[in-house]
Amino acid sequence: MADRIACQALRHKICTAAEAATHISSGNTVGMSGFTGSGYPKAVPTALAARIEAEHAAGRPFRVRIWTGASTGPELDGALAKADGIEFRLPYNSDPIARAKINAGEMDYFDMHLSQVAPMAWEGFLGPLDVAVIEVSGIRPDGALIPSSSVGNNKTWIDRADKVILEVNRWQDARLDGVHDVYYGTALPPARVPIPLVRPDDRIGEPYFRCDPGKIVAIVETDAPDRNLPFTPPDATARAIAGHLLEFFGHEVRRGRLPASLLPIQSGVGNIANAVLTGLVDSPFHDMTAFTEVIQDGMLDLLDSGRLRMASATGFSLSPEAAERLNANMGVYRTKMVLRPQEISNHPELVRRLGCLAMNGLIEADIYGNVNSTHVMGSRIQNGIGGSGDFARNAYISIFMTPSTAKGGAISAIVPQVAHVDHINQDVQVIVTEQGLADLRGLSPKQRARLIIEKCAHPDYRPMLADYYARALKGSYGLHAPSLPGEALSWHQRFMDRGTMRP
Amino acid sequence: MADRIACQALRHKICTAAEAATHISSGNTVGMSGFTGSGYPKAVPTALAARIEAEHAAGRPFRVRIWTGASTGPELDGALAKADGIEFRLPYNSDPIARAKINAGEMDYFDMHLSQVAPMAWEGFLGPLDVAVIEVSGIRPDGALIPSSSVGNNKTWIDRADKVILEVNRWQDARLDGVHDVYYGTALPPARVPIPLVRPDDRIGEPYFRCDPGKIVAIVETDAPDRNLPFTPPDATARAIAGHLLEFFGHEVRRGRLPASLLPIQSGVGNIANAVLTGLVDSPFHDMTAFTEVIQDGMLDLLDSGRLRMASATGFSLSPEAAERLNANMGVYRTKMVLRPQEISNHPELVRRLGCLAMNGLIEADIYGNVNSTHVMGSRIQNGIGGSGDFARNAYISIFMTPSTAKGGAISAIVPQVAHVDHINQDVQVIVTEQGLADLRGLSPKQRARLIIEKCAHPDYRPMLADYYARALKGSYGLHAPSLPGEALSWHQRFMDRGTMRP
Repeated sequence: MADRIACQALRHKICTAAEAATHISSGNTVGMSGFTGSGYPKAVPTALAARIEAEHAAGRPFRVRIWTGASTGPELDGALAKADGIEFRLPYNSDPIARAKINAGEMDYFDMHLSQVAPMAWEGFLGPLDVAVIEVSGIRPDGALIPSSSVGNNKTWIDRADKVILEVNRWQDARLDGVHDVYYGTALPPARVPIPLVRPDDRIGEPYFRCDPGKIVAIVETDAPDRNLPFTPPDATARAIAGHLLEFFGHEVRRGRLPASLLPIQSGVGNIANAVLTGLVDSPFHDMTAFTEVIQDGMLDLLDSGRLRMASATGFSLSPEAAERLNANMGVYRTKMVLRPQEISNHPELVRRLGCLAMNGLIEADIYGNVNSTHVMGSRIQNGIGGSGDFARNAYISIFMTPSTAKGGAISAIVPQVAHVDHINQDVQVIVTEQGLADLRGLSPKQRARLIIEKCAHPDYRPMLADYYARALKGSYGLHAPSLPGEALSWHQRFMDRGTMRP
Repeated sequence: MADRIACQALRHKICTAAEAATHISSGNTVGMSGFTGSGYPKAVPTALAARIEAEHAAGRPFRVRIWTGASTGPELDGALAKADGIEFRLPYNSDPIARAKINAGEMDYFDMHLSQVAPMAWEGFLGPLDVAVIEVSGIRPDGALIPSSSVGNNKTWIDRADKVILEVNRWQDARLDGVHDVYYGTALPPARVPIPLVRPDDRIGEPYFRCDPGKIVAIVETDAPDRNLPFTPPDATARAIAGHLLEFFGHEVRRGRLPASLLPIQSGVGNIANAVLTGLVDSPFHDMTAFTEVIQDGMLDLLDSGRLRMASATGFSLSPEAAERLNANMGVYRTKMVLRPQEISNHPELVRRLGCLAMNGLIEADIYGNVNSTHVMGSRIQNGIGGSGDFARNAYISIFMTPSTAKGGAISAIVPQVAHVDHINQDVQVIVTEQGLADLRGLSPKQRARLIIEKCAHPDYRPMLADYYARALKGSYGLHAPSLPGEALSWHQRFMDRGTMRP
């Protein structure tokens, strides 16, 4: 481990996780590393949770405010939520225990655009940051910090926090050194300047975090893997969605509206995203790039195939097998990847400049193309908006993908009106289900409604949607986007009452 | 007039509006100049409408697709809509006749983010542009075109159209020459580069439009004023809203979260916007700038006071009196103003870099801070989203202002759930009514709900909202953002049924 902490002057800060956790007090705001299950601290949060449980057992209140990059792992969100130790959480969560607390009304959660977290932390209205807990893959002789498997908001947490606790994780491949590009040119207005990135592979920063050694109060050595959820292979539905989308890309290339290398792709994680990326392996497109949040399993396949030239992201989101593959071949992969702060990986300025092809998932879309990607039945949060808004609003083509039904057909992903809106119809240009693809660009609301019902809805729900739309054309207050407010959300109420949207 | 058309080689193109209109055929897509009632063509559209009426009278179909900058005037949208001559319209409309056609389901309307119109026209999916009809204030000896009182999408329409028709309007002050800054550095990805603007007063382009003289098929001389709607003086409600907002700005300056010059202001038009701008005249803030869409009456007051150093916009939106005042003092005003293409005035990259303070109006907001600024009762479009999304999503502080009720109290501007969403809660940071101001930054949904009901709702509706929220806390599917889908839009249905949201 000595080689991982090469700064002699800092070695006396090495301590146990329990000792490190004593630097965190009740009421503190703590900025943690971590983005979609990669690069989060694995020892200190668990030790903090144990401390909180002991305090609670002794009848003393102890809760903290937690800021991260995005989702983390069970050792962080799970352990702290289980200990009832999180008073307030931002900007994104996918942990099931924390989700249950939020939806039980027991934890305040501020669901944010991921590009805005760092700038808003600097604005000041979120209050001071007391402690940063950051996983790194090493400390250089000069004290510079080698980032881990995600960059997230770490640069900002280190800069803003009064105290810094480091976890040096030996499990992370040492060859990650040099993969990162930490941009130090951000500022508050009126001092902001253009972000000098014009291609996904441009390097505009430094490979390391700067950190005032005087702020480092503890260093904990760890050797533990990232969360790395099992890979779900694409099913027939996912492959059908991918097929429609690849056909659309081919069509756009033939029409001269996309280059044969496409444009930088942004892709979420999961079954459907992997099906699309796998489909691209066998596609005619070549010399592609990715400018995205995370590098997932399918992205490695695409890099291996040579069709994807390079990928820019802020972290990894891999299966255990893919993580092993990444580390085994890091010598090659490291030349084809750049990991950046999430305020850069998701920056609206860059997403628009590069012209990303944004591919995101959803919970439901309505007949006018408004998308709910966060709130089941309008009130129960699933994960959060994450970076989807950063990409969808500014993309060259903004694509949303979903199976046409959920819960064995009890829920239609296409509804008369979404119960919550994350992406307004202006930011939703293509909707794809296994049924088909609706290209909504340049269409009026009524043109969109006819296309979405015809192309995307499941046949079981298509007549119900057509019936609603036909009656809305008669009973609506205005006929620009016909609706029946008294009935528009009745499918959701029916599901809540009877467990199905079917009549 | 000779001095206005100084290019001898083009003088033989001078003709009547009726002659010019013959260059437009049924089915054509026509890109017109015009932004919020300024700089739109005043003669050719009216002549086209007469031609369409004659064709219709003869039993021949004749309709066109109209693209503009934003809203225009009665001689354009009004005349063409009255003639039933518009098949499709983008990106924004405020004409009452066109609005009625849209809401009667007789005209397709594509309501767009104003920053995206030009880039999307270049993307190609909107189809070719057959004819551009552009008002200019003069033609220089070398054929360069001196823009008029708005820039809008004119650069793009001139570049993209097969044929160009010019209206040279002598009414526009000749000293507008030099006020404009037409940026010629845009491109499609992957060739896009940073927009090199870092202060609102930076000039990054040229004062004139370039135009291939071979494309100019007709030049029409006009001498007619812009639409210039009468000024509505701020009433007590508007003054109360402005008061709350100015107090908030003062508070942020004292906390060190805003500089004493504030940050570049963006402001919509109307009663409330004018009250805020007038209020700033007597404020302690100084050396202010504006980076906004339009220069309205209150902005001239603010320039006169010396508190506003300069204003960047894409056009004017003035009362007849203010237009006279502008033209009488153009020699001074021209040194304090820059008019740019709307893809620059509204560019997300620039709005975020400059850190605009965005102040926009709304139709309704819900208890979680989602905003509907376009669709009355969810279906009847008022105007359109315009530039509000460009500014709200990227602002340093995104503010929405409204009286707490409308229609003499029959409509509450604060509702359990908005019937249409234009601005998601993440993009709505401050809501102000005459009742008070809710600073929603960094709050969870339930924290926002309590604040909005307490600070913003009208006392007549406050108990109804509190009752809904209390019942939602019991009957909601999830407690992150409690809602009752079966009831959430019932206030709108009640208004449709009985003419009031009151029980």
